[in-house]
Amino acid sequence: MGRTSDARNKILVAAARLLEQRGYSALGVAEICATAGVPKGSFYYFFESKQALALAVIDEHWVNQRRQWVELLSSDHDPLRRLRDLFEATEEVQRTGQREAGRVVGCLFGNLALELSNQTEEIRSRLEEIFEAQIDLIEQAVVEAKERGQAGPSVDAREVARSLVAQIEGRALLAKLLNDPGQLELLWHNSLDLLQVPPQQRAAIDQDGD
Amino acid sequence: MGRTSDARNKILVAAARLLEQRGYSALGVAEICATAGVPKGSFYYFFESKQALALAVIDEHWVNQRRQWVELLSSDHDPLRRLRDLFEATEEVQRTGQREAGRVVGCLFGNLALELSNQTEEIRSRLEEIFEAQIDLIEQAVVEAKERGQAGPSVDAREVARSLVAQIEGRALLAKLLNDPGQLELLWHNSLDLLQVPPQQRAAIDQDGD
Repeated sequence: MGRTSDARNKILVAAARLLEQRGYSALGVAEICATAGVPKGSFYYFFESKQALALAVIDEHWVNQRRQWVELLSSDHDPLRRLRDLFEATEEVQRTGQREAGRVVGCLFGNLALELSNQTEEIRSRLEEIFEAQIDLIEQAVVEAKERGQAGPSVDAREVARSLVAQIEGRALLAKLLNDPGQLELLWHNSLDLLQVPPQQRAAIDQDGD
Repeated sequence: MGRTSDARNKILVAAARLLEQRGYSALGVAEICATAGVPKGSFYYFFESKQALALAVIDEHWVNQRRQWVELLSSDHDPLRRLRDLFEATEEVQRTGQREAGRVVGCLFGNLALELSNQTEEIRSRLEEIFEAQIDLIEQAVVEAKERGQAGPSVDAREVARSLVAQIEGRALLAKLLNDPGQLELLWHNSLDLLQVPPQQRAAIDQDGD
């Protein structure tokens, strides 16, 4: 990697960390450059504006998160187990974030959605695409769970997927507020209820892979 | 009301609106005073700092919201119906906010929790108290619902109350992101699942008071 792309990468890494910890409005370009250890001139060589940088951070974060979600949700485990893997990974991401940053950082997309939805249309619309893509990925697992009788027959797969994403975001909010990744522990239990999983299926999945 | 307290009130009203629309970090005291139509000197007569003002806005918002929650959750309807009333009122608050502000403003407490939890301990701890108080209020209704056989016997009232608050926050986030208060419509349906409400109770409550 050459010096040039190295500087771009340093800016992205510093901005991702600062955005997660402090949000968008509280950050200035000068602080991002100081944290990244690059001159301010480099910043405007790579990014037109703070907003353009934020979009690049969002896109990179989603590339990585999407890869993990797709991997977990397309494994050869049965669909309920795949969802459990996803929720456990989500909790683990917050535990890792807490170890690295000293505090739970929450969900970057949720943080920016609440901060910027009424201020920056370009960021808002990008976040909308990401949340809809998350709902799509979960919906596929719910459809499969229904086909196998692992979810209630009257469950609307799309709506449950949306409810699960909402539950993830709400619990990530509590985890950040309380600096406690354990707030995400019950996601799996909530999902069994929201998916109307029949009792015998609950028993089977709880015995599987513990 | 004298001129002095009138100025304080104008600052509080302007700050509440601006905080809901734009968050904390993006706001300056000068802008708050300009919006309120009061001189900057007045601001520091009433509030030590922007943080002190934000705490006053939070407290006033909670006094009003708490009054509504207590009223709805202590009515003489049965407990499930009271919860439904609460969710419908929550959706209506967002619809009203959208009409007044042009966009869904979301939950002030959730917005500030994600923006400030890792920055301002005094605000964070106040928000923690408020969310715990919300969970307390919902928990009481869940306990009653269990006693009447309206919720599943194995449901942990405290944990379900926490899940319901998380679901409210997650759906308020989607409502703000999509500028669509309708994202809160399924809160009631989600709650029936999270509360493990037996089918015959669901039928009864759906016929009640429509």
